[in-house]
Amino acid sequence: MSSAPQINDPDALVLSPDPSHPANLIPELCAAFYKLGWVTGTGGGICIRTGDKVYIAPSGVQKERIEPSHMFVLPYPQPTTDRIFLRRPTLNLKESACTPLFWNAFEQRNAGSCIHTHSQNAVMATLLWPGGMFEISHQMIKGVRRGGNGPALSYLDTLRVPIIENTPNEEDLKDSMAEAMERHPEAAAILVRRHGIYVWGDDWQKAKTQTECLDYLFEIGVRMKLAGLPTVLN
Amino acid sequence: MSSAPQINDPDALVLSPDPSHPANLIPELCAAFYKLGWVTGTGGGICIRTGDKVYIAPSGVQKERIEPSHMFVLPYPQPTTDRIFLRRPTLNLKESACTPLFWNAFEQRNAGSCIHTHSQNAVMATLLWPGGMFEISHQMIKGVRRGGNGPALSYLDTLRVPIIENTPNEEDLKDSMAEAMERHPEAAAILVRRHGIYVWGDDWQKAKTQTECLDYLFEIGVRMKLAGLPTVLN
Amino acid sequence: MSSAPQINDPDALVLSPDPSHPANLIPELCAAFYKLGWVTGTGGGICIRTGDKVYIAPSGVQKERIEPSHMFVLPYPQPTTDRIFLRRPTLNLKESACTPLFWNAFEQRNAGSCIHTHSQNAVMATLLWPGGMFEISHQMIKGVRRGGNGPALSYLDTLRVPIIENTPNEEDLKDSMAEAMERHPEAAAILVRRHGIYVWGDDWQKAKTQTECLDYLFEIGVRMKLAGLPTVLN
Amino acid sequence: MSSAPQINDPDALVLSPDPSHPANLIPELCAAFYKLGWVTGTGGGICIRTGDKVYIAPSGVQKERIEPSHMFVLPYPQPTTDRIFLRRPTLNLKESACTPLFWNAFEQRNAGSCIHTHSQNAVMATLLWPGGMFEISHQMIKGVRRGGNGPALSYLDTLRVPIIENTPNEEDLKDSMAEAMERHPEAAAILVRRHGIYVWGDDWQKAKTQTECLDYLFEIGVRMKLAGLPTVLN
Repeated sequence: MSSAPQINDPDALVLSPDPSHPANLIPELCAAFYKLGWVTGTGGGICIRTGDKVYIAPSGVQKERIEPSHMFVLPYPQPTTDRIFLRRPTLNLKESACTPLFWNAFEQRNAGSCIHTHSQNAVMATLLWPGGMFEISHQMIKGVRRGGNGPALSYLDTLRVPIIENTPNEEDLKDSMAEAMERHPEAAAILVRRHGIYVWGDDWQKAKTQTECLDYLFEIGVRMKLAGLPTVLN
Repeated sequence: MSSAPQINDPDALVLSPDPSHPANLIPELCAAFYKLGWVTGTGGGICIRTGDKVYIAPSGVQKERIEPSHMFVLPYPQPTTDRIFLRRPTLNLKESACTPLFWNAFEQRNAGSCIHTHSQNAVMATLLWPGGMFEISHQMIKGVRRGGNGPALSYLDTLRVPIIENTPNEEDLKDSMAEAMERHPEAAAILVRRHGIYVWGDDWQKAKTQTECLDYLFEIGVRMKLAGLPTVLN
Repeated sequence: MSSAPQINDPDALVLSPDPSHPANLIPELCAAFYKLGWVTGTGGGICIRTGDKVYIAPSGVQKERIEPSHMFVLPYPQPTTDRIFLRRPTLNLKESACTPLFWNAFEQRNAGSCIHTHSQNAVMATLLWPGGMFEISHQMIKGVRRGGNGPALSYLDTLRVPIIENTPNEEDLKDSMAEAMERHPEAAAILVRRHGIYVWGDDWQKAKTQTECLDYLFEIGVRMKLAGLPTVLN
Repeated sequence: MSSAPQINDPDALVLSPDPSHPANLIPELCAAFYKLGWVTGTGGGICIRTGDKVYIAPSGVQKERIEPSHMFVLPYPQPTTDRIFLRRPTLNLKESACTPLFWNAFEQRNAGSCIHTHSQNAVMATLLWPGGMFEISHQMIKGVRRGGNGPALSYLDTLRVPIIENTPNEEDLKDSMAEAMERHPEAAAILVRRHGIYVWGDDWQKAKTQTECLDYLFEIGVRMKLAGLPTVLN
């Protein structure tokens, strides 16, 4: 942490009485995502960026029991060499393994928040759409924005979400996710086959509502596919 | 807002310690609907009319996090020209895009409340009943009233819910919904293909319990259809 | 109410600081059943008998919003002529339409509590077992007691739940339910085709846990049947 | 209880203001498991061992309503003859019938906690994998540890969970569970056909997160199998 900025009291970065402070929001949202079945086990989570600071939850912990004091705070942008932190929890914790993937969303889409889920709706979609793209049309897709941060899609558009192949280590997904985001500038999220999804937005509200819309679409798409109904109309 | 009535303190319309005040009920009910999967993303909602005032939630926000101060209050009836308000939230919010459709329920059925959901049970019903009508008989339909505000249906009746085709913009559904309501005076709700449903009632309790009954019937109807069981008996 | 016993303060029958008082338990349990999907709309409910008093919720109300002051209290047994009450809510409410059916459980099984649900698991079971009996074996049936109040079933037994046909009015089920209970003394519950189930027990705890066990068995039985698996082994 | 150690105030073993005390955690976790559908009726539960003391919930009670005062505390290890207790609840309760099976996890894997569920995902897995082993690969299995207490599995590994046959009495599963654990040292859990699962871990957190991961894998495995998708890739 040689080049880490000097912060007098790093804990002040995560201790706030304001419920809308990122260090309070992340535990609250992770608990809500747990109830939705998005982050069971210890998988998945959410990070929030407020300008030059990024708040990230620890790796490998029960996501519905995170506390503000467990948060990592990183400066944004990061140097290209070692990763540096403004604040680390005193407990023996490691920052989320999703960190490099969240960074894709910050750098390529200027996102203010990125969500990762292991939702079974997303995973089933990657199994029933064996190619490189989930597609659905004529459903309630207008809650999703082009590229995740552009204008909303219309009912008459076809929603397309690229699917990349999974790797044993989460961080090894960084390049293929970055490449998929670059090749598909209109993509609002990236599905990872047999694993889950990454969704971003300008702020946590937009990241969350877009994750909900997409999860809804994967669920109804899977139900339609299993019922023999076409998921894209011309 | 040239012709808007003069209200000394518009905020007094939405700030009340009474939990049964519409401005308190709407946030509570929207949070409950979120848990039922009816209003994920930012879709769906409920409006309540008490005599000459209509309380409506904002558009495009997380429905489980609405606050009383976010409410719009409109006079009823409205002039035929511009829409007028008794109270608008100070935040930069837009009233629900469902407003013209809620108005159909007020004008054609004298409803005291109208609910809109994106429930997957309703959407699947519109996909598996490809014609213009969902039909089911010999189920627990007696919680549904004829026309939404008349006497309850009997176990021996057949429940029929008209299905209209979706449009890219919610407000463009107004005419086809109004026409379906007029053509089917016994209809207690209107399904919108690949989108959701509008259900009304004399008050919020009746609108809510009828929405629950109908959602239950769509769910069991879809399960029956997928299991190869007939959904209407003679 | 000519022959009703004289009670000085009928409200004292339902107002208690004790959370285990029936008038407090019924609202709490109905709210829990709502979350399980057993009493959506306004259907279903629970009654509790403590010796010579029966506590019953009102008919046609939102079951998750019942309050102790909404309770009816009836003496047990009842005269064979008009129904009498020890206490009625001041609101314009009607006692549950299930009252005559709950009485079957009191009279024929000496039950201390009876639960009625519209659970879709129960209804689907009545559709996929078109005869007069739901049967399953080699599942976790040992939470169910013979006759609802006898010794527990064993893993090696076959659970049998009689199915009676529905009628337009709930009270018209009284005789066929009574007859099925008499014909099947080992039955722990009675299914009503296309409608739901009645389950009883010595007290509310046993009625509730048996309802949960049975609902679990209907759910797994339906899943097995739809997957082409046999539900009874020899 | 002839050889039971002398404890001056046995209730002090279960009365603590610390929410992370096992006697407080077990009721909290059982209530959470109830919401997940793992312990409906009265089945299933969790035990926690802290060094030489084992905390176990009572048998045959509503698992979402357990209180700290209902806990049994046993010394670990136990003599080979009669079972002894450090503390029993004053109520007329029996310790969990799973106790001998929990002991397998303590003795064979040095576990600090063991969880038993009746989850339908686990039961369906035992029905759709009719042999002696549930197998899945290329899913998010990395939350599961080899043997339940070793290094985590990798995405490229195949998860294997042995399935033993059920018996009428829970305690009669002790030997076949012990044998399966010995024959499969890499097994992180033991499935019981038509009944449920036993999962252990170094502490309650690891037992719980591994139970969640496994339940997720049974759910997706069952969905894949029913959709005709292969669950193990080469």
